This record gives sequence, C-alpha cells and structure tokens, in this order.
Amino acid sequence: MLDKQCQLRFTYERSEPRFILQPVDIFRMKHRNQTLTPIPTEWIGPISITGDIVNEQISVPMATYETPLWPSTGRGARVSRECPEGVRCTLVDERMTRSVVVRARNGQEATRAWHNIESRFEELDAVVRTTSRFARLIGLNRQIVGNLLFIRFECETGDASGHNMVTGAADALLGWILSEYPSLEYASISGNVCTDKKTSAVNGLYGRGKYVVADMEISRDLCRKQLRTTPEKIARLNLEKNLIGGSIAGSLRSANAHFANMLLAFYLATGQDAANIIEGSQGFVHAEAQEDGLYFSCTLPNLIVGSVGSGKGNDVIDDHLLRLGCKEDREVGANARRLAVICAATVLCGELSLLAAQTNPGELMRTHFKMERG
Amino acid sequence: MLDKQCQLRFTYERSEPRFILQPVDIFRMKHRNQTLTPIPTEWIGPISITGDIVNEQISVPMATYETPLWPSTGRGARVSRECPEGVRCTLVDERMTRSVVVRARNGQEATRAWHNIESRFEELDAVVRTTSRFARLIGLNRQIVGNLLFIRFECETGDASGHNMVTGAADALLGWILSEYPSLEYASISGNVCTDKKTSAVNGLYGRGKYVVADMEISRDLCRKQLRTTPEKIARLNLEKNLIGGSIAGSLRSANAHFANMLLAFYLATGQDAANIIEGSQGFVHAEAQEDGLYFSCTLPNLIVGSVGSGKGNDVIDDHLLRLGCKEDREVGANARRLAVICAATVLCGELSLLAAQTNPGELMRTHFKMERG
Amino acid sequence: MLDKQCQLRFTYERSEPRFILQPVDIFRMKHRNQTLTPIPTEWIGPISITGDIVNEQISVPMATYETPLWPSTGRGARVSRECPEGVRCTLVDERMTRSVVVRARNGQEATRAWHNIESRFEELDAVVRTTSRFARLIGLNRQIVGNLLFIRFECETGDASGHNMVTGAADALLGWILSEYPSLEYASISGNVCTDKKTSAVNGLYGRGKYVVADMEISRDLCRKQLRTTPEKIARLNLEKNLIGGSIAGSLRSANAHFANMLLAFYLATGQDAANIIEGSQGFVHAEAQEDGLYFSCTLPNLIVGSVGSGKGNDVIDDHLLRLGCKEDREVGANARRLAVICAATVLCGELSLLAAQTNPGELMRTHFKMERG
Amino acid sequence: MLDKQCQLRFTYERSEPRFILQPVDIFRMKHRNQTLTPIPTEWIGPISITGDIVNEQISVPMATYETPLWPSTGRGARVSRECPEGVRCTLVDERMTRSVVVRARNGQEATRAWHNIESRFEELDAVVRTTSRFARLIGLNRQIVGNLLFIRFECETGDASGHNMVTGAADALLGWILSEYPSLEYASISGNVCTDKKTSAVNGLYGRGKYVVADMEISRDLCRKQLRTTPEKIARLNLEKNLIGGSIAGSLRSANAHFANMLLAFYLATGQDAANIIEGSQGFVHAEAQEDGLYFSCTLPNLIVGSVGSGKGNDVIDDHLLRLGCKEDREVGANARRLAVICAATVLCGELSLLAAQTNPGELMRTHFKMERG
Repeated sequence: MLDKQCQLRFTYERSEPRFILQPVDIFRMKHRNQTLTPIPTEWIGPISITGDIVNEQISVPMATYETPLWPSTGRGARVSRECPEGVRCTLVDERMTRSVVVRARNGQEATRAWHNIESRFEELDAVVRTTSRFARLIGLNRQIVGNLLFIRFECETGDASGHNMVTGAADALLGWILSEYPSLEYASISGNVCTDKKTSAVNGLYGRGKYVVADMEISRDLCRKQLRTTPEKIARLNLEKNLIGGSIAGSLRSANAHFANMLLAFYLATGQDAANIIEGSQGFVHAEAQEDGLYFSCTLPNLIVGSVGSGKGNDVIDDHLLRLGCKEDREVGANARRLAVICAATVLCGELSLLAAQTNPGELMRTHFKMERG
Repeated sequence: MLDKQCQLRFTYERSEPRFILQPVDIFRMKHRNQTLTPIPTEWIGPISITGDIVNEQISVPMATYETPLWPSTGRGARVSRECPEGVRCTLVDERMTRSVVVRARNGQEATRAWHNIESRFEELDAVVRTTSRFARLIGLNRQIVGNLLFIRFECETGDASGHNMVTGAADALLGWILSEYPSLEYASISGNVCTDKKTSAVNGLYGRGKYVVADMEISRDLCRKQLRTTPEKIARLNLEKNLIGGSIAGSLRSANAHFANMLLAFYLATGQDAANIIEGSQGFVHAEAQEDGLYFSCTLPNLIVGSVGSGKGNDVIDDHLLRLGCKEDREVGANARRLAVICAATVLCGELSLLAAQTNPGELMRTHFKMERG
Repeated sequence: MLDKQCQLRFTYERSEPRFILQPVDIFRMKHRNQTLTPIPTEWIGPISITGDIVNEQISVPMATYETPLWPSTGRGARVSRECPEGVRCTLVDERMTRSVVVRARNGQEATRAWHNIESRFEELDAVVRTTSRFARLIGLNRQIVGNLLFIRFECETGDASGHNMVTGAADALLGWILSEYPSLEYASISGNVCTDKKTSAVNGLYGRGKYVVADMEISRDLCRKQLRTTPEKIARLNLEKNLIGGSIAGSLRSANAHFANMLLAFYLATGQDAANIIEGSQGFVHAEAQEDGLYFSCTLPNLIVGSVGSGKGNDVIDDHLLRLGCKEDREVGANARRLAVICAATVLCGELSLLAAQTNPGELMRTHFKMERG
Repeated sequence: MLDKQCQLRFTYERSEPRFILQPVDIFRMKHRNQTLTPIPTEWIGPISITGDIVNEQISVPMATYETPLWPSTGRGARVSRECPEGVRCTLVDERMTRSVVVRARNGQEATRAWHNIESRFEELDAVVRTTSRFARLIGLNRQIVGNLLFIRFECETGDASGHNMVTGAADALLGWILSEYPSLEYASISGNVCTDKKTSAVNGLYGRGKYVVADMEISRDLCRKQLRTTPEKIARLNLEKNLIGGSIAGSLRSANAHFANMLLAFYLATGQDAANIIEGSQGFVHAEAQEDGLYFSCTLPNLIVGSVGSGKGNDVIDDHLLRLGCKEDREVGANARRLAVICAATVLCGELSLLAAQTNPGELMRTHFKMERG
C-alpha cells in the first residue's frame, strides 16, 4: 500500500496548460505491492493534419524512455506545418477480430459445418448483439486444417479498441456454435488466427484495427532546409533499407524504419494496450521523388486504438485524450477514428525525420537525435 | 513546466517495502510540455527460478494497463514455487547487432569487398573497441542483393542492451570501411538487417539479444489443482492454437499465446526499450504430456534487455532493478543476464496461466482473468 | 528440327494399357533447337479415395527424376486401400486470381477510387464475362500502400487452372478501370498480390486454386504392419519436425515434410504449370494419435490444377488425364475438381510414407526409399 | 513394360546438333506402368555471360509446358549479347545442408550438449568424410526450442547438388551424436531446418545451394529498342510490383516476378530436382535507373544444382549438360558452379523480359508472350 497515494492531475486550459501533481488515490491501489512506473512524456507538435476525419493542427503526447524521439518527431511535425496540406490521413477500414477453433471428426465435417455456419450470418450477428451495446458482426473468415475449423469473427466495436468486446462476442458465439453443432468439440476460445499481439500476415490481409494511410507532399526546398536531404535520397533509402533490407531480414508485411517507437510512445500516453505495437509495426513506407518534391507515405494497416476501455479511466490518460479532442460528444466510433488518424500522423512525423537523418553519413550519431534508433 | 515536479521515491526494506511520492525533480523536465505517464505496476511472485544464472525465488514488477495480467502471472509463479526445480532458465546465447548497407558498382565488386572485409575481422574489432569500453565484435554476417552489400555486426555490449553501443560501433566501422574501400558508397547506417523493433527471421536465426529457454516440469496433481487442467489438454492446445493456428495466421518464427503482454509489463517496469517486445514476441511454447506430468517450455530467442543504459537512471526504475538484484557488483554482463533470465521466467508464468485457462470452455470470461487476452 | 520427330502414343485399355512410341510430330517442333526432355513416369496405386467428389480406387502417374518417390507413395496408397474410408478428400474452396496495381495521386484518392470500384461489382463481372465463356468474377480484395491501389480479382475459371483466363480478365478490367477513373494511372497488369509461383501468405488466406483437405484414419495395426510405426510416433514427429522445425526455419504457412515432391511429379504428369508447386507446397500436416489409431491429414490450400488449358493437348498428357477420368463429360469445373482431389490424395500417400520412415532411426537410409528426401 | 522402349539420343556437333529418337531402353523401365512424360524443350540464346566463373556466350535448354517462356527469355538473351559485359555472374557462396533434431531432457541439457558438440567440429568433420569422397563439413548451426536441439550441418558436396550426400552425412553424424551423448534421444533425421523444398528464411540467411548474383548494365538505347521501355519504368515497376506488391502479399525473402518459371525449365532440362525451385524462387530483383541506362540484377541465394547425381545419367540430360560445358574435366565443384551461373543468367534474361513487357499497358496480352505469367 502506498504511504501517500498520489494523483497526477492536470489543470488544463488551451492557452496555458498546467500540470499539478496531487497526493490522492489514483489507480485504486489496494495492495502494498502496487505502485506506479512513471514514463517521461512530452507533447510534440502541433502536427498539421488534413483529410476526411481531422483537419486541424494537433499536439500529441509521447510517453517513452527514448527521449530523442521527441525532437525527432517534432521535426517531422514542423515540416507538416509548412506543407500546404500537412499530413493527409485516410481511414481505409476498421474492424476488431477474435478467432475460435473447434474440432470436427474430420475435414469433411469441418467443411460442412463451416458452410452451414457461414450461411447463418444473421443469427451469428444476433448473438453478438446480445453481448454489447456496440458490437456488430461485420465479417467472417475461416481456415480449415485437417479436422480443425478456425473461425475468425470481425466486429465493429464503437470507440473501444474492442479486445474485450470481441472476446465476449466470441465466447457467446462459440457457446452458440457448440450447442447448434453438437458434433463439434471445443478446442480454444482463441485460435491465434485473431491474432493479438503477434506477428502475422492475417491481420494485414483480413484487417484488424484501423487501416490508415498517412501521406504528405514536401517541397524540395523544405526537404533541404528542414530535413537536410533530397527527395531522391529519401526514396532511395526507403528502397534500399526498408524494402530490400527488410525483405532480406525476413520481415513480413513490413517495410519501415521505426514505426514501433512512435506507436509505443503514443499508445502508452493514450492508455492503449501497447503490446499491440507488434501488429502496428507491420506497416509500409512508400516514397517517391517527384518533380516538385517528395511524396512520402506511411501505411498502417493495423492500428489498434480506442478512446474508451481498459487503460483509460485515470486522470492522466483522460486528460491526454481530452487534449487530443478524443473525448468529445461525437457519433459512435468517431473519437476512436480521430485517435487513429492522429496516431498515424505522429508515426509519419517520426519516420520521416529518422529516414532523413539516415540519408546523411554520420548525422544520426552527430545530432541530438543520436540515441534514436531504427 | 510542472508546477510542482515530483519524484516517486521508494523506501525499501525486504520485509516491508514502502513507497513514498515526493515533490522533487525526477526526469529533468525542463519544458512546460513535459510530464509523466504513470503505468500501474504490481510486484508478482515470487517466482522460483533455477539454472546456471539464477537460483532464487524472485518477485518481479509488471507495469501494465492490463491489470488482469497480475493475478494470471501470479498463478504461474505460484505453480513455480510448488515445482521442485521451479522455472529452469538457460541462456543459450547473447549478442547485440546493427547492420549497415553500402553500395558497390555491381554484385561482383560487392562480393569481393565482402570477402576482403570479412578477412580483416581483427581490424574491425579494433575499430569497435575504440568506441566503447564494453563493445567487442563477436560476429559478422552479410547479405548481397545486386550491388548492395549489407553487413551485420554482432557485438558484446556488457550490461547494456546495447542499441546505442552497436550504433556507435557501426558508425565507426562504416567510416572505416568507406575509407578503406573508396569504391564503396554510403547507403545507410542502418540497413534493416539489424533488425530493431521489427518483425523478422534474421534476429532469431543469427541472434539478437539474449536467447533464453525457460522450462518447467509440473506434476499432474499440480496441473489439476492450480491450473484446473491436464498435461494432455495443455499440449493439445499448444499444438492446435499456438503452432497450427499461428502457422495459418502467417506468423513468422512465433508460436505462443501472449508473450508480448508479459514482456511489455516487465520491460516498462525495468526501463527497457519496450518497442523491442516486437522481436521478443517471436518465441515458442513447446509442451509435452509426459507420464508424470507436463513438460512446459517458453523459448525466447530475442530478449533485448539491459541493466544499465537509457531508460534507466531514475529512482523508480533503479529501485525495481535493485530489488531484482540486477544492480549488484558482478562481472560485466552478469546483471543483464540475470535480468534476461528473470524476464523469461515471468513470461513462462503468464503464458502457462493463460493457456491453462483457455483449455476450459468459458473460463477465460468467467474468471477474474477475464480481461486477459491472447 | 528433329531428324525424325516422334510421338509417344498410348494404346489404352483399362485392363491392359500399352504404350507405343511412334515417330510422328508431337509438339509442333518447328525449329532445330526444339526437342523433348523425357521425365521418368510411373503409375502408382491405386489409391482408395472417398468423399463428395471421388469415390474410387484410382492409379496416378508421377513424373519425376526422384524415382524412390514411386515406391514410397505406393506404400501410402497400399495403406489407403486397407483403410475402410481410404483417403477422404474434401474441397473447401476454389478460385483463380490476378491482381493489378494502379497509382492514384495520394492515399485518399486511392481509397475513394477503391470504395467506388468495389460498389460496382456487377459491372466488373460483366467485363470479366466478355473475356471468356467460363470466367466469372466471384471476389475482390484490395491493399492500399500510400498512393498505390492493388486490386485482386478472384474468378471462377471452369476446368482450366485459369492463369491465362484471369490475366485476360484482369487486362480487360484494368482497361475499364483506367477509362472509368481517369485520375488513376497504370502501374502494372500484375501487382504480385495475385500471387503466382511465389511464396506468400495471400494465397492461403484469400484463396488461390483449389483448397483441399485429405485425411485418413489408420488403425494401430496398419501403422505397425505397413508403416513400421505408431500413431504416437507420427504425431510427435509432425509436431517436432513439421510444426516446430518449420516454424524455427522461418517457414510461412507451411508445415510438411515434402508435399513438393508429390506435387511436382503429379503436375508434370498431368500437364500442369509445375512452377505452381511453390504455392502448392505451402500446406499443413495435422496428425493425432487417437485411441483406435492415427488421424492423419494433409491440407492443401493452393492446388492450382486444370484438366484443360496450356500444357495439355499432347497425347501423353491427354492419355494421363483420360486414365484419371478427368476428360469425361461432366459439369463445368468437375473434371478439374476431380483432378485436384486425386492430387491431394497422392500428396497424402507420399507424405505419410516419408514421415513413417523418419520416425525410425536409420530407416530413411536403409530402405529402398533411401534417396527420398524431405 | 513398354512395347517398344525408346531412347532420345542426340548426335551432337557444335555447328550442327541433330536429335535422333531411337527405340532402345532408356530409363531401365522394368514395369508395365513405367513410361516417359516428354516436356517440350527449346534451346534459347546464346546468353552472353561474364564474371569469375564463365566468360562465354552459351545457349541454354528450357523444358516447359509454358512455351511463351522461350521467346521471352530469348529476348533477354538478345539484350545480353548487345551489352558490353553481358550478364555478369558472381558466386557469393555455396554449401548444402541437412538438419537433424534430437530430444534432451530439458533446455539446459540441450544447450550443454550443443556447446559440447559445437566444440568437436573436427570430429564431426571426420565422421562426414567417412560417408563420401566429396563431403566436407564447413559449418554448423543450431536452434533450441525447449528440450529440442536442432542441428544443421553445412557441407561441401563437390559437383553434386548434394541432397543424398548430406543425408548420408547427417545419418552418420546423428548416429555418432546419439552414441556420444546417450542422454539425447532420436527425434528425426530431418528437422525441417534444412530445409528442403519448402519456403523458409533459414536457407537464405544461413545459405543452401549456390548463392549467385547476376547483373547487367543496359543502355537507354537498348532498353528502348529491344525492351520497349526505359530504365525509370523498370525501376519503378520493380519497386511497386516486386518489392511493395510482394511485401503486402506476405512474401518472404522474395521480390521478383517469375524466377520460378525459368528455374523450373532449366532444372527439368538439366536433370535437377525441380522441387528445389521453391527455395530457388525466393530471390530478389534490384534495379536502378542510372544516368547511362539501367542497372538490373537478379540475386538468387538458393540455387540448388549439380552436374552429377540423381536425375542425371540418361542420354538427354547428359547431352544437355555436355552442350552446356558442364561435363568437362575440371576441379571438383567447378562444373556445378558453372551450371549455377548459367542458370542465374537464364533467370535474369527471363525476368528482365517479362518486367519490360509489364511496364507497358496491354503488352503482355498483345504480344506473343501473351501466355507468359508472373
């Protein structure tokens, strides 16, 4: 038990944010062996973001032990503010998933069961809706291996990242399936085709979380002045390092320098389940040297974020989400989409800055970004 | 700037740990936009650990928003204390790596340069030693793609995880190479064959970080009483979910349920660069139902941890490391190895507990582990 | 030009097949530099096959330089004839695919174009139907990376494997898209998300070719007498070698010993494009030791086969197809499905036999299968 | 049994090759159910090859049902003859491998056994040398998963591709290990970390077969006249299709259009075990638009070829090898290296030609290459 429990409370005004730390109960720490690990956090930006979801300049909090990440991402944010359209962010898709696995007598029975289950989508959706106000079934996938039938449920989950919501839905669906198809046997509530917090191809191809493309056009002048580089150098580095280097390293659906750094910092600061940086890190940089400048993009097919749910509900995180404008009264899901888009823009700023630094021999070590890695 | 900056200070006695929060400077927060994100942290265990490196019962701190992880990992720890040998941990290998990429005129020149560079290992090692008291070159790999030569340096890095140390070494080596081989051109200080914080096969095959095998023999009785399961059920779940499910999901060198959860919590609580859970999560469960009980193992080929270096140096983290016995006066590298072994044992405890829960229909949702995922 | 061109002609009766080689034109060899490479071919079996598509005992031709494959696969066939249900084969899915890639101005435009294209499925199908009597559009997938839009078309292709049919369809669709969406630019008629003859996860997850599960229940007695092994040994070998060994090798969606050998031999003998063994080889063995014996299965998600189309149309191949019963007058697609099922059964026979041999130290080298590999 | 068995015999003179088919025994066909599957074969080229191993213009045989491959590869060969240095081929490495797996009591014993075995390299090599005149042990790798120890042996195998030689060596080594380390148990003579004929990362990273880089510089003029394209178009197509498209498809260590087609045709025509196109297909195109023209390269890390061994020993294959100059009296291994280099050059010719065609909308369908795929 803490001698004096504390709360990190924020007194917040847009023009003059103030942070006050007060000794009050914070995480309902009931046991002597509970405490807090404080992660250094800085607001960087603002980042200029455009697109269908956000059109604003927004500062973002990054919680990390790798403090050189702050000035580096900050440099990218500075560039965004000087680009006419800033970081353009587009949401391609969103869904949350959980897979179950059941055992049939053989492959024939597994296949027949699947075809029958697949044809009863409406009933499955009705089961899902009993488990949560927000959960909706929007897709089904299957894999059959011998006598094993893996079924992957894809759901809408409102503003939550939805881990628990889809687990609840899957639990109900599995119960329903086992009762409707008595010849099937329980194998596992999670069949690893979900897949949560593990490297895979399935999440990128079938979708899990928000799929966001962030891109930006940067003039040659801006490349030179702010990033000390050229469009050609960035495009070539992306080819040689991220694409070819990544490929020979045996990377899987992944071509970037350090998406994971920005994701981790953003996830921790906004109360996300940061182990989801694993699938989040499987994304792509695509860069083109164009006549006028650099086309630079970061594609993040698996951003698993929510503005409500576990990890939220303490003053620090809530204050961060509030400042990000993700606790406002919007249609269901809009706060989470906003959060995803801001996250993607943050990733782009940090990725651009590190790649620019790596185009120049010695710069990574020389500059104040020297501890930054990727 | 914080109005009142604070420090989380610990008054620590083995029998009676006390945590006191005091309003003093902690992370040298110099700017108004710096603050702290507090991560709920609990000490779980103790875990009973045996092997060449640790033979003790040790409690471990886990910093996470996913608080059901605590009782779940705690259950695994309880089991470890009832097994005669506890969690047996074996260090197979350790090294830290960084790759550079240079451009030759063509594949022939790249190959010739490589063969020449490879033959000058001693000189390369001498360059490495100029960059740090602890860095030693212990291995070299290469990949050649067309005219591109990727060289991957493998180093000893003492008690540090070694990101910065190998970056410094690589920077010096790259400078030396470009000066010794004027026909080669700089392409990148990091060629993504390192590879840091990204999914790959290269880290598991060539090695990066500590390679630790943690295993445990659990009697049938203990399986039943503490884990409500049988050896056969665990072995079958591992086959169907982790191995087959993982394979069809397109996982790469990865067969587990949720290594990432324990890694993240342990990494945050001990000041590690937690984005390295990406490679850390690429590990394997292997379980066998034996006559006497369950053989259960977690193999972690890429544990990137250090007891010194960035992320360390604040009171909270230092206290955690101190309590783990990883700040003691030992031979170079021994504190980091100890940390790796404790981390692996923690992963095993959490993995075992979740898998056991998943062998029983409905248990995951019913129990107090209900928010735990995998 | 051949001095004396030849034809391998078969005089065929079910009870008494006879092979006669005659000096007539065979492959329209017009140039002096054309000739024939003869591949040794043997009919093995018959294999006892059951299921929704085939319920017969069928002998199969295998063309290979690896002649130990014949007795080995033959042993599996012998086992199938002694199992009450033989090799049970189930077709889970079938489709053929081709992807194109187009370039938009940015990710936002790529996404908008995709959503619009996706909504015009009927029009796309109409375009496909103009290109072939048999082609039907049955699915669409997309991947967006920055400003690049990859669209993957999934088609029915009748009895052809369908490479050319989907390339024709994709060519027409791409023309239509570029004319309907003038802001999109041509990038490639093939975007490698098809993907043809290359390792991938996409084919297994989205589907390409026939998806067949072949499984068999083998009594303990039969395991012992014919295969000199036990159900437990086979199941354990599959776990340790195919699943764990495959995973650490960095295999992708692949857990088997040597599917490729049987696929190659069957593909060559039946006029298939044998480079498609690459995706074909990405399949799974799942084996269980059950009370009564062994449950053994081979899952082949990507069998790309056709009973008509290129590679066919010469007397040897046509005779092989005729003997397999795949040139009969059936509903469209039925001959190709029959061929896929026979192929999967052949794979199972060869896989089972090699795994059985590998359960015993030294057997692989000692026996007449000694040159067989996996 | 064949009524009239036949032999494809070649009367061969460099200036005037003649092919005569004669009715004599060819493959020792002893059974009525043995026959031959004839694969259409054409000699394409000559290809102009330079480098440390071959400096000649050489025609190559391609056996394939996909006959458009001939003119397409022929076009690449034509380009090679007009480039000053032709196709420059460089051998980076060569080795052949087999892995075994043994079972220890736990991870600690597996690790200790490994360290001990590793230290006895000379003894292991001596065991290898007893098994063949040509086999030499040149490397050892290990992977440990729980109580399983996988050991991968790397050997020189002279002019043979070496499958059987390393299997023999592994069999002897495994016997030796089991007798020297009685606490270890046999698990499998092949642990799938070899890995043969299966997708993996291990073969590319540790090496298996010949590692060859083929590259060529093509003037802008030649690009335009022979390939109807530009350096920029080829480089961009490679980026967008092979690298990005391949990555999102979930390809593994693979970025090319259709290496598999050329490999299959060359392997069949030269008596190779063509199932090894699976690892062979995992290779990379790297292309750069340079001021003077196009730098184009094909990197093939896993060319498994031999000029002696199984698949050889019949007149057709021997004649093909003879015409390729791979049956001459050279130092051990030189004929196989020559074969590998010629194979890589063939792959480059076919790859270049298809990519060039795909840079132009409609060309693939319009031209006589219309059936060619990738």
